Amino acid sequence: MFTLPQKESRMTTACPDSDSIQGLASNKGDGLERECSRKPDQKPLKFYGVGDPAAVLPSSSPYLSSRGSVIKWFWDSAEEGYRTYHMDEYDEDKNPSVILLSPLCPQLSQSDMLHVEPALLQYPDWRGHLFLREEVARFLSFYCRSPAPLKPENVVVLNGCASLFSALAMVLCEAGEAFLIPAPYYGAITQHVYLYGNVRLVCVYLDSEVTGLETRPFQLTVEKLEMALQGANSEGVKVKGLILINPQNPLGDVYSPGELQEYLEFAKRHELHVMVDEVYMLSVFEESSGYRSVLSLERLPDPQRTHVMWATSKDFGMSGLRFGTLYTENRAVATAVASLCRYHGLSGLVQYQMAQLLRDHDWINQVYLPENHARLKAAHTYVSEDLRALGIPFVSHGAGFFIWVDLRKYLPEATFEEEELLWRRFLENKVLLSFGKAFECKEPGWFRLVFSDKTHRLRLGMQRVRQVLQGQPQLADGAPPRQIQEPRGPHR
Amino acid sequence: MFTLPQKESRMTTACPDSDSIQGLASNKGDGLERECSRKPDQKPLKFYGVGDPAAVLPSSSPYLSSRGSVIKWFWDSAEEGYRTYHMDEYDEDKNPSVILLSPLCPQLSQSDMLHVEPALLQYPDWRGHLFLREEVARFLSFYCRSPAPLKPENVVVLNGCASLFSALAMVLCEAGEAFLIPAPYYGAITQHVYLYGNVRLVCVYLDSEVTGLETRPFQLTVEKLEMALQGANSEGVKVKGLILINPQNPLGDVYSPGELQEYLEFAKRHELHVMVDEVYMLSVFEESSGYRSVLSLERLPDPQRTHVMWATSKDFGMSGLRFGTLYTENRAVATAVASLCRYHGLSGLVQYQMAQLLRDHDWINQVYLPENHARLKAAHTYVSEDLRALGIPFVSHGAGFFIWVDLRKYLPEATFEEEELLWRRFLENKVLLSFGKAFECKEPGWFRLVFSDKTHRLRLGMQRVRQVLQGQPQLADGAPPRQIQEPRGPHR
Repeated sequence: MFTLPQKESRMTTACPDSDSIQGLASNKGDGLERECSRKPDQKPLKFYGVGDPAAVLPSSSPYLSSRGSVIKWFWDSAEEGYRTYHMDEYDEDKNPSVILLSPLCPQLSQSDMLHVEPALLQYPDWRGHLFLREEVARFLSFYCRSPAPLKPENVVVLNGCASLFSALAMVLCEAGEAFLIPAPYYGAITQHVYLYGNVRLVCVYLDSEVTGLETRPFQLTVEKLEMALQGANSEGVKVKGLILINPQNPLGDVYSPGELQEYLEFAKRHELHVMVDEVYMLSVFEESSGYRSVLSLERLPDPQRTHVMWATSKDFGMSGLRFGTLYTENRAVATAVASLCRYHGLSGLVQYQMAQLLRDHDWINQVYLPENHARLKAAHTYVSEDLRALGIPFVSHGAGFFIWVDLRKYLPEATFEEEELLWRRFLENKVLLSFGKAFECKEPGWFRLVFSDKTHRLRLGMQRVRQVLQGQPQLADGAPPRQIQEPRGPHR
Repeated sequence: MFTLPQKESRMTTACPDSDSIQGLASNKGDGLERECSRKPDQKPLKFYGVGDPAAVLPSSSPYLSSRGSVIKWFWDSAEEGYRTYHMDEYDEDKNPSVILLSPLCPQLSQSDMLHVEPALLQYPDWRGHLFLREEVARFLSFYCRSPAPLKPENVVVLNGCASLFSALAMVLCEAGEAFLIPAPYYGAITQHVYLYGNVRLVCVYLDSEVTGLETRPFQLTVEKLEMALQGANSEGVKVKGLILINPQNPLGDVYSPGELQEYLEFAKRHELHVMVDEVYMLSVFEESSGYRSVLSLERLPDPQRTHVMWATSKDFGMSGLRFGTLYTENRAVATAVASLCRYHGLSGLVQYQMAQLLRDHDWINQVYLPENHARLKAAHTYVSEDLRALGIPFVSHGAGFFIWVDLRKYLPEATFEEEELLWRRFLENKVLLSFGKAFECKEPGWFRLVFSDKTHRLRLGMQRVRQVLQGQPQLADGAPPRQIQEPRGPHR
């Protein structure tokens, strides 16, 4: 997302979306995930990279443990963008922008949303109150289109998917073990599995170039998964699971049911857990994209190792409400995660509110989702047309809040240093994008542009993007690389 | 706490207070904290014990890591009491009892408690919204009687003190390092510092017997702290901090300002962090007990290593609301904890509610606390008089929700096996106490009895306690050990 500062006279800009903040977080890490961030001009290209967040060398504090210093480093390194944002926030009715909120606030303000009774104020079942887990099961059954009703006993609720990644890393892996993840990916997951769990990510690098069996840029194939897994194994890294984000962040892409099935079969062959992060499940604004939740599949290849994550942070634009949920048929995993939920619990009063919100399918179907999707689509159309007019290639498939933009031709050299310099030029012109390195993209020059904002702010933001790019020398071959495709219909 | 089941015909009982549940949690651990739970008849007595939760040998799951299995074990081992409680809860207006709740529910139900605005629904400052940290600083300044106003920038808010222990363990210690803690102590802390942080507790064993410089049973002295620290060091265990619970759980005791100062000086000499858990700060119902918050001291010996914890779970009887706070002058520690707060965040809507609640000093001073203290005092008086009538010695000093009861004379042998058998006899008679082993008490036969309940339930509970004890053979020397004292005025 790019949002725009209130006071034109101050240098800086903002992004209230922690995705972007996380982007910044990974930015300052000279030593962060060195393997992952190798330059693409090093030959031969590796198809995977084993992250090593411990390679961070933070300034040590006499008061903190070494791991405490690393934890603090992640905070400090996020500060530039975060502080900048909070110091000079674009403030309009005190709403820093997300377009999904306006229909939600009145809904959450209704008097039946405040309900206080002693049972809600006392120690809860750490899995979540039963009334809420029942509602979540009903909600997911309907919106994931599960072939059979989902069960409350397979639901664990907690304060967001960040916590869920943290808990799953702890209970599925020993310290030092790893999860596979296709890259580019939402960079904050690096911290989520590492800070508490000491679990690393093995990047499965995806390319913009389309070759062989691939049908689109950055396509994940089983071949790439196999190669990354073998590569990690050959380095002695024990891989325990695979993380799939669907719809994908930052690509805005969705996996077809056939693809999903292939990835799940791959995982089953290697006895890998699969964590499917469906946090943008209801933010598919192009019907034609053919999105399907993993819970809609007729048959999961390995249900005991398939764990589904959802939250209200994106689909309901409520990252500050702190609500996330796990769905898994594996009793041991559900119980172990629940045991950690004493550290990730959410208020009984919020549990009540969430049950009220999720129960109201009429409002969600007839009011919220149509309005949400129409706004997302309009904003997406506005920005994508502007990008086309600028001759900027991009990837986007009708899901999520972002467009994955190819600014490679604006980098004098294909390095991450130049990528960061361009990012800084945007920042100086008060527009904040997230650069590709924050998502472990292996090709310098890609940026994630969040479009879930109001039109006049998008207009101002795009103007500023244009100003920066027009002042930037372009490579001679300024034509878009041939394989970059624009939004289109369902893929296999 | 003992509470009483609804259906007299069913075997079982209940305790809605997770303190007790935690008590149960430690119960099943045959291998849990072996060092800590050695039998007192082994000579010579050690004055400390190094906990080793990893000594647990849970049944392994093919789906979980070894640490995941340990984490799950803590859940499973709590099940007996927890499930029993939830299956057959004493249900009266669906209120499982805590007497503090009745004035709170109307307060929290007021219409100004529900406030929804976009800023509350978006990614927060992970330290907590500034408006809440300002309110917490004002609240603690007033109720802790700090000599100077406390500062919002030293406040971090999160979803409860369990999370705070977890975060502090991570950022202050390397894996395998330890904190000192006087025992008996609130047993759940074992899990809080271990499950994520892999930090152990070194118990500083306290005795019921009063000797030498001690003025009361279970008195903590600097000499005992020094011996435990040296002992741990001699075993190669690196101790990084000291945990003080004040008012103490399960003793219901408070440290005098002079004692506090001595412990803090001890910690400073050894460069130990001190975590002061003041979660019962407002539950001191005997003015004469002389309670003082550590934040009221004129001068902290080592302010950079002094970290104060408070929550609404006990003082406002709202364990299900999930609100806790850290106060520390140490910027590095505050920042590192804040960095972990992405896993311990609480909803923006709850942050608003908490600010509203804590802001209303008039209601707290004139309505809530007087009523709260009067109820606690009445319940305490009722139970302590009943105990006296039964000839049962106990320790209690006018703070907290519990009385530390000496049932040693009812054990045929002074073993923890007999202690557990007696506990089971209570459970079979549908009354739930927490046994001393759950608090790492080194003398078998002590029980924690929670009295924060309604009179008719207390009456029924005490009847059942009496029934069990009357059926239990008593040791010949049934007289209370001479040093056990009853509630009294301020001590040094």
